[in-house]
Amino acid sequence: MKIALVGGTGNIGKGLAVRWASKHDVLIGSRLEEKAKTCVLEYSKHAGTTRLVGCSNESAVEQADVVVLCVPFEYVTTTIESVRHVIEGKCVISPVVPMRVSSNRAEYTPPEEGSAALLVRTILPESASLASAFHTVPAKGLVNPEGGYDVVVCGEEEAKKVAFELAIDANLRPFDGGPLENSPLVESLTPLLINLGIYNNLKNVSIKFLYDDIGR
Amino acid sequence: MKIALVGGTGNIGKGLAVRWASKHDVLIGSRLEEKAKTCVLEYSKHAGTTRLVGCSNESAVEQADVVVLCVPFEYVTTTIESVRHVIEGKCVISPVVPMRVSSNRAEYTPPEEGSAALLVRTILPESASLASAFHTVPAKGLVNPEGGYDVVVCGEEEAKKVAFELAIDANLRPFDGGPLENSPLVESLTPLLINLGIYNNLKNVSIKFLYDDIGR
Repeated sequence: MKIALVGGTGNIGKGLAVRWASKHDVLIGSRLEEKAKTCVLEYSKHAGTTRLVGCSNESAVEQADVVVLCVPFEYVTTTIESVRHVIEGKCVISPVVPMRVSSNRAEYTPPEEGSAALLVRTILPESASLASAFHTVPAKGLVNPEGGYDVVVCGEEEAKKVAFELAIDANLRPFDGGPLENSPLVESLTPLLINLGIYNNLKNVSIKFLYDDIGR
Repeated sequence: MKIALVGGTGNIGKGLAVRWASKHDVLIGSRLEEKAKTCVLEYSKHAGTTRLVGCSNESAVEQADVVVLCVPFEYVTTTIESVRHVIEGKCVISPVVPMRVSSNRAEYTPPEEGSAALLVRTILPESASLASAFHTVPAKGLVNPEGGYDVVVCGEEEAKKVAFELAIDANLRPFDGGPLENSPLVESLTPLLINLGIYNNLKNVSIKFLYDDIGR
């Protein structure tokens, strides 16, 4: 698969790029093409592969089958608008979390649509399929490909299916969280995990789901 | 400690009663005293102890050091109002979750105060100390005292300290979730876990937190 990491020069972009680069073509997108190319040199040290390419966000999306929105919530609207003309018919995955983080507290601050994913849905063209995923992976832990984490995937069927496949390829264990309307429950896990780190003096807090029956 | 389980005749009341009855005096409260006494006979089969007593909610709260609100969200306001005159100065623990559950979806539906716990805070007398806890334990799994689960505790210092002790006595692993303002992040874990059960065909879904550094 060809995966565009829009705004892929940040922490979560690095982790996902390193995990996917051995199985997929990963296009690191940035507003500044030069910055993307510099990141690719850095990421390649961890990934040990040449299947990483740095380019503009627009060029990354244009070439990709799947687009992962690796931008902070504040930039998600303008970023999508800048690539909207080349995103028609593609699968889009949003790990975006609207939150306010200070030194002693993280708070979930969803827009009036109810969640980042529900806002993104209103901006994307109808033909794009959207899933919300990868909120529970600690960005730094992700860079070490051996750390297995659980992720919850909400969304529309086509994008959800792709997100499940990509999760497994990244050594993550995906769970179905239902339709996109459930995304507030999943996005709000990120500030919860940050808070557990703050109040309990822990690092890279993540989640494992336990259950009794294996009907999967 | 003397623990009142207000509305303790339901599933969560049963599980907590069974786990605490070997170490504490547990007062099962109900609007109907007879119902509480019948439950005590049933619970005692699991707990193997005589430190369980059935009584009215009012009598349970009056005798207790700690009060656990085991009622559904719909009844929390009227229940607290009915025991408000005997709850002064006590520690109160709220596992209450405002949610709408249908066959194919659970949704977090907080009141305008932001969460059940924040609503409860507005009804309780100032002298009572409040914590929000025990939202992530599957009620049925709780009855088997061997199942270890993680719980997040938010709230005011005095009640939080008691909730931590009681969690450990119930073979649960408590994490500090910060002040009561963070309770929406914790309460919304319950509909998330119910959804994971629905969409992935799992039973008794619960959470385990993973982390890198043990600074606790």
